[in-house]
Formats: sequence, structure tokens, C-alpha cells
Amino acid sequence: MNREILIHQIFSKRTYLCVGLDTDLNKIPRHLLKEEDPLFAFNKAIIDHTIDHCVAYKVNTAFYEAQGIKGWMALEKTVNYIPDTHFKIADAKRGDIGNTSDQYAKAFFETMPFDSVTVAPYMGEDSIKPFLQYPGKWAIVLGLTSNKGAADFEMLSLVSGNGESHLRPPYLYERVLETVTKWGNPDNLMFVVGATQADEFSNIRRIIPDHFLLVPGVGAQGGSLKEISEKAMNKDCGLLINASRSIIYASSDADFAERAAEEAKAIHDEMKAYIIRI
Amino acid sequence: MNREILIHQIFSKRTYLCVGLDTDLNKIPRHLLKEEDPLFAFNKAIIDHTIDHCVAYKVNTAFYEAQGIKGWMALEKTVNYIPDTHFKIADAKRGDIGNTSDQYAKAFFETMPFDSVTVAPYMGEDSIKPFLQYPGKWAIVLGLTSNKGAADFEMLSLVSGNGESHLRPPYLYERVLETVTKWGNPDNLMFVVGATQADEFSNIRRIIPDHFLLVPGVGAQGGSLKEISEKAMNKDCGLLINASRSIIYASSDADFAERAAEEAKAIHDEMKAYIIRI
Repeated sequence: MNREILIHQIFSKRTYLCVGLDTDLNKIPRHLLKEEDPLFAFNKAIIDHTIDHCVAYKVNTAFYEAQGIKGWMALEKTVNYIPDTHFKIADAKRGDIGNTSDQYAKAFFETMPFDSVTVAPYMGEDSIKPFLQYPGKWAIVLGLTSNKGAADFEMLSLVSGNGESHLRPPYLYERVLETVTKWGNPDNLMFVVGATQADEFSNIRRIIPDHFLLVPGVGAQGGSLKEISEKAMNKDCGLLINASRSIIYASSDADFAERAAEEAKAIHDEMKAYIIRI
Repeated sequence: MNREILIHQIFSKRTYLCVGLDTDLNKIPRHLLKEEDPLFAFNKAIIDHTIDHCVAYKVNTAFYEAQGIKGWMALEKTVNYIPDTHFKIADAKRGDIGNTSDQYAKAFFETMPFDSVTVAPYMGEDSIKPFLQYPGKWAIVLGLTSNKGAADFEMLSLVSGNGESHLRPPYLYERVLETVTKWGNPDNLMFVVGATQADEFSNIRRIIPDHFLLVPGVGAQGGSLKEISEKAMNKDCGLLINASRSIIYASSDADFAERAAEEAKAIHDEMKAYIIRI
């Protein structure tokens, strides 16, 4: 899905919600375990009930890999079930030397019909570029993540480069944003910025005013939808706000899909108040 | 496999070679494509012919994921085929927030019998700790990688911390080594250091004298086995030197396994001259 279509979907539906399918065999309702493919049965019901309230689905590959071959089958069935009206994110945090990242790009963009893959930046340019070679596909590079460990390396202060002038030394995550943007453009690059990092959002928009941000951490991790929308929305919206656990595990009973729909609708309703064409 | 057994294997066989199974459906001999599972048929032959010359196998997950479900089946069959005499590495470069890294650890340590997983450090402590909770299992954290992109972020200079005294500002990768070692110990942590980074090996051993290093980049990427062994071997050997393409693709004909054995034997013979109990 290209940027133009994504923006059209966001403004026509007035939502920038991404539903995260972190589907854990130990957390889904017990009655689904008798299904042939419990993970997919759960995802299908969640998708059917949330589709009008979101523009994207984010599939967290770890939960599928943990179930081995059956999990990988559920992953493939899930991404194939999501309609092309919705932006499909493989939350896989991949990244390796060039010839290996080529294979990861093939896995998610050719073997499976994902629109995007989350990518870790540590290994640099040749680890990211293979994901930027597919028209209409995206690399979503880790910028500043939502977890406590973000402080360990992402927030380290760097010695300023030649000719740089800053009020303070740049953080590693800032250099990641500045450098990675040179390898792609706002049509094939997004960045992950955690909703728990609200203090940094204005700063981030100074560095990357145009790029879409994938924002996890609303809901179970405690980030504020209102604050992020105020600080980080741009003229194209520029936000995909993910909620996973707070939606998909709203109920552990037979009404899980209906309760997921209610949670997604509540976020959708809140988003309608924030979304504006600037 | 715990550290004691790994060291015993290394010194009894006098090899610290790791054979990398970067098995690409487009590079394996054509006659294998008629097999029911070409990737596994290739790996089985490579393992059978190289097993006396190495102590470890490294399975690069990207090449299997690129083939979808069939690839994941070949991955599982491969790791199950490697005997317990050999250290099994999932070269997967995983890492995510804690509850997701839990799932990756489960995938590689419970669902599959890998001894270790390569892990990217960018997201910090909670992204790595879940891999350190399994007795006899290891996280192999990216330190300084073998690729050109290592210069982009891993070699950035940091502002020195309080009380630190360095002749020059520390590089990001040095801080990664210093920080990550605090989260585990030499019995459950290794680091990836590329063979192409020979200038840094003495420095790395100053920071982490005791940890094992997984060293890719010998062979196709051009690193020198002799130089690395001289600069980075410790009293327990402390090295797993990986060669992938130079061994497994030594021939693209019917003799591929025999030629792989010859290449592995040549490295083994060279290693016998270097390996010493200090």
C-alpha cells in the first residue's frame, strides 16, 4: 500500500488505529483451543469485528514463531485474510547484513503480502536498504521504543559530528532518525516511536516532520492517545497508533470479539475528534 | 549446551569452527530440487560431511523464512538433525520488548532445541534478559558486526559517562559490550564480532576478556582466521568462528558435500595450529 492510499484510508475512515495481533495461545479464550487453528480463528474474529475502526493490522511474529510450524501457518493465513484496504505490518524487528536482509524482505514482501516490516537499525545501511527496494512497501525502523530498555542505548548521548550545532549532544535515536531518512524517503520509511516517550515527540517531529510514525504503547503500556495526537500529528496525519492487548484481550470469554470491537470503537471515536486536515 | 561442555568439545576436537547454514534455494545444487525438502536434504548432507570438523552450526533463519512454511519446516528439521555434540545457533537477530522477547526465547529454546540465539541490542535490557533465563542456553548479542553498515551506528562516539576515563570517547559498540555484560555472565552471554573488524579485537578483549565471541566474516567476507585467532583467543579458546558460503557453496555440483568437507577440513587443520590451552 502506497502513502497516497494509506492517507486516503485514514481520512476517509477518520481513524489511524492499528490493531496489534500479539496473539498468545495462552491468552485466547479457552473455547477456541478446540479449533483446528486457534490462533487464526482468534485473529479472524478480531479482524472481522475491528475492521471498520482501524486502518492497519500489526502482526507480532514472535507469538507465531513460539508455536512452531503451526504458528507460522497461522501467521500466513492471518496476513492473507487481512483485506487490501488495510495496511499490513509484520512486527518482526529484523535486520542483518545485506544478503540476509534481502531474504527477510523476500519473506515478508514476496512470500507473504505484508506492506511493511519493522527493522532494527543497529547494523546500519546495508541491513535496512533491502527493505526499501519494493515499490509500495515500507521499512518501519526502530527510533525510540516504548520499553524501559530504551534508556539503555537509544538515549545515549553522542559526540556531535563536524558542523553540527546542537543545544545539547544528540541522542543515539536522534542520529538514527537523521541518518536513516537519508537512505529512503517518506514514501518507503516509517519510524517506531513509543507512546510512552511523549516528552520526545515534539523533538522527533522537528527531525522528521513528514514521516509516518508507528506508535505502540497506547493501552497496556500506558501512553496517552490525546497527547501523542496533539504533539505528533502532521498534515497527512502521519500516525499509526497501535493498541494490542487492550483490544484483543478485552475479554477472555465468548464475547472477546465483540468486546474487542467496543475497545477499537472507543479509540476510533476519540481519534475522530483529533484527526484534522491541517 | 553449557560452557564447560562447549569448551570440552573445542579442545577435544581441536576446532572452533561453526558452519553457517545460510541455505538458499537458489544456490543449492539443482539436482536437490527434486527432493521433497531440498533445503533439509542439502543441510543433512552438509552436516554429515562437516560434523568432524566443527563444534557448532549456525542456522540463518532468514533463508528459511523466505521459503514460507516449507522453509520453517526445513529449519525445524535441521535443528533437530544436528546432534547434541554440536552447539546450535539460531542466527535470528531477534529483540523486542520483554513480553515479546519472551516469545522469541520460547520459539528457539522450547519449541526448537537451539542452544543460542543472536540478539540485537538496540532496545536494551528487557529485550535481552528473556534469553538469559534458560539454563544452558545463550544470548549472542550483536557487538561489532562484519558489514559495512557497522560504521553507521556501532562505531559512533559517545559522550563519556560520569567517572569514566578513556583516552578517547567510547564507541557505541563498546558501551553495548560493557552494559550487556552486566545483565548476564560468560556462561549465558556471547557477543558477535565480525572477522572484518580485526583492528578492534584487542580492544574488545580488554573489555570482555572471558566471553565467547561468535565471529562471522571469515571466508566470503574476507576476514583472516590467523589474525583473529592471534588477537582474540583466550584460555578457554573463547571463539566460534563461522564460515557459511565458503563451505556450503564450495561446489554447486553433485560433489557439494564432499567439497564442503574439504573446505571445513582445511579450516580445521589451520585451527589445530592455533588452538592452545594458555
